[in-house]
Amino acid sequence: MKTEIINVGSEILLGDILNTNARYLSSVLNKLGCSIYYHTSVGDNQKRLKKLINLALERSELIVLTGGLGPTLDDITREITSEALEIPLEHNPKIAEEINCYFKERGITMPKNNLRQAKVPRDARILHNSNGTAPGLLIETKNNIIVLLPGPPNELKAVVEESLLPLDLFKPMDSIVSTTIKTYGIGESQLVEKIEDLIQTQSNPTIAPLAKEDGVHIRLTYKGNQQYASHYFSKYKKRIDERLGNYIWGYDNQQLNQLIIDRCAQKKLNLSTVESCTSGAVSSLLTDVSGSSKVFWGGNIVYTDNCKKEFLSLNSDIPNGGVDKDITEQLAGQLYIKSGCDICLAVTGALGPSTPHNNVSVGDVFISTILKGNLKTSKFKFRGSRETIKSRVVYAALFKVLKEINTL
Amino acid sequence: MKTEIINVGSEILLGDILNTNARYLSSVLNKLGCSIYYHTSVGDNQKRLKKLINLALERSELIVLTGGLGPTLDDITREITSEALEIPLEHNPKIAEEINCYFKERGITMPKNNLRQAKVPRDARILHNSNGTAPGLLIETKNNIIVLLPGPPNELKAVVEESLLPLDLFKPMDSIVSTTIKTYGIGESQLVEKIEDLIQTQSNPTIAPLAKEDGVHIRLTYKGNQQYASHYFSKYKKRIDERLGNYIWGYDNQQLNQLIIDRCAQKKLNLSTVESCTSGAVSSLLTDVSGSSKVFWGGNIVYTDNCKKEFLSLNSDIPNGGVDKDITEQLAGQLYIKSGCDICLAVTGALGPSTPHNNVSVGDVFISTILKGNLKTSKFKFRGSRETIKSRVVYAALFKVLKEINTL
Repeated sequence: MKTEIINVGSEILLGDILNTNARYLSSVLNKLGCSIYYHTSVGDNQKRLKKLINLALERSELIVLTGGLGPTLDDITREITSEALEIPLEHNPKIAEEINCYFKERGITMPKNNLRQAKVPRDARILHNSNGTAPGLLIETKNNIIVLLPGPPNELKAVVEESLLPLDLFKPMDSIVSTTIKTYGIGESQLVEKIEDLIQTQSNPTIAPLAKEDGVHIRLTYKGNQQYASHYFSKYKKRIDERLGNYIWGYDNQQLNQLIIDRCAQKKLNLSTVESCTSGAVSSLLTDVSGSSKVFWGGNIVYTDNCKKEFLSLNSDIPNGGVDKDITEQLAGQLYIKSGCDICLAVTGALGPSTPHNNVSVGDVFISTILKGNLKTSKFKFRGSRETIKSRVVYAALFKVLKEINTL
Repeated sequence: MKTEIINVGSEILLGDILNTNARYLSSVLNKLGCSIYYHTSVGDNQKRLKKLINLALERSELIVLTGGLGPTLDDITREITSEALEIPLEHNPKIAEEINCYFKERGITMPKNNLRQAKVPRDARILHNSNGTAPGLLIETKNNIIVLLPGPPNELKAVVEESLLPLDLFKPMDSIVSTTIKTYGIGESQLVEKIEDLIQTQSNPTIAPLAKEDGVHIRLTYKGNQQYASHYFSKYKKRIDERLGNYIWGYDNQQLNQLIIDRCAQKKLNLSTVESCTSGAVSSLLTDVSGSSKVFWGGNIVYTDNCKKEFLSLNSDIPNGGVDKDITEQLAGQLYIKSGCDICLAVTGALGPSTPHNNVSVGDVFISTILKGNLKTSKFKFRGSRETIKSRVVYAALFKVLKEINTL
């Protein structure tokens, strides 16, 4: 089904917010076999929105609009959609009652503006919104399906997952299915060289590399009858594994933090961290995994020299501003003594722009792991902005932990 | 100047990546007075890209394309742009040499594919890329300016900041200027009610509320001669302050973490944290601020009961799985003893989906601060997914710290 997504909201065009909705919707709709040809963002402008909707009605079958369903006057999506489709807006008492209840549950009187949200195109199907006051709406015409969804991401997801998907409306002939192979430790250009012949000759599935925070991903995309996809995917995954096997760490939705927590849980290992420059970014990422408290014990943020001295019970000065192999190993060792964990991770480094000592350059990093008493330390050199280096250090640390876990 | 941004790349339409480039470019171009009317994302498809470029050439003056400048066969932007403009592609030896040097500096032989990146529309201006091999390109025709930029965000920013902006090409008659007022502690609907008359009657500047992680922002947008903007902004800021002053914490690019670090530095305060559920998210955010080591001492991640016991030197069980007023206060107190910091922050809570104890509900949170020995504790109740609650807890904690700093 030829599909396009239209995000309504001047805040997108002014660069105030990231368009996460387009990404989420693409992900969901692709799995249903929709072929998404365009994402467009347009402002809260009646004339341009109407022009765009008319263009979409011509070139696409399914049109999904997000945003502009709020209660204020610059929320124009319901109104302009009804104009473009030449369907009148009508007050819907059921929606009005639900909005009233929403405020009641929170102990607030419904602001009068919110009544505008109960004025919807006649005969539109209501898609209940459990996270907000604006219901989604679905309108079917002779040639098109038009879906209106709220802008705030948590509301959009609630409407899509609880009210839209269960309608089971999209019956694809052809699906577009993707699978992803995740690698780490090899740059994009060099990875491409190793599988270049596959990339060039493959038209279905297509093979595309994508550089990410957690390494280089290879996405295989198949368009056709879904039952054949896995056959093709296995074939190419095998070939890619023959060339890049050493670098592959995961597939599809596998996330590095989840993988680490799951493998530790399987092998009955627990884990603690002591971070200097990353200052909690590693521990925070590990505990984004629900249930991580069965694995992750806790840790320390030894951001300054004084804090390192307190942690290590040292009186003497910390050499090299703490970005030091010996200090990093001492931190890991002290963590091991305090926590008794099977895996202890210590991270020090200079994120920039300044460094804590003349001997230290921006991007110098030490990462130590102690696995059941066995200490290993690596030195790294990263380039880029403070933000980029921090991200690279976090992932280097996590991959070092994963590597250790995989030795057991 | 009527402007649109076109992002080329199937990975966007498949929902693989977030379109951060559109946001960044909007932010930059708006300040230069460009009126951005559309963001469109389109796949690596020759026919659809050409159609879109032709539409853009008609409806916009400045067209900025990102992506599709890589070395592989699915990188089609140079080729399709040259077709749409009817300008031939030519091999540019200067670019070829720069690409060769890029690989040489990294000790790698240039993959042959990268030579494709030296084939550019005749007479295109080269915009050097210090972070990658694909130069940006600028083409001026009778009616349009077309800018081609690389897709990877760090390369795009390098080309824009080092090569495009210095050309100083965009001489606006009218500017679009925005200013933002940042509030915390009041919901969006209630905020709108307090300034409803201003929102409804104001057409220039427009006044728009935006719900964010760090509270509700109010964006004022002025279109016209830039020298008058600040006059209007002061006027409306004053009015809004009269109605919402208690909730306003910042303006424009002010970030909460930067504000906290700056104010601590000014008042010569240092700061430490002990986090349970947030597990380093607070300390990581604080230290995203360059120079924060002058203020932030370090801290602890007491994620599990065992870790809390170790930190507090307790033998007895931790009540209520640690989500407990008394325990939170003890954590803050122990941190104060260890760190001696002027401000000590302790955070415990249940992010969900499960809770550590029957007495504890999802979203129950305690936050304690000790300011120069003076202890205060607040209890909170948050709703939403694990991710949403974690974010809300992080900001509630930071705002509590800011509130304490502001008492001095």
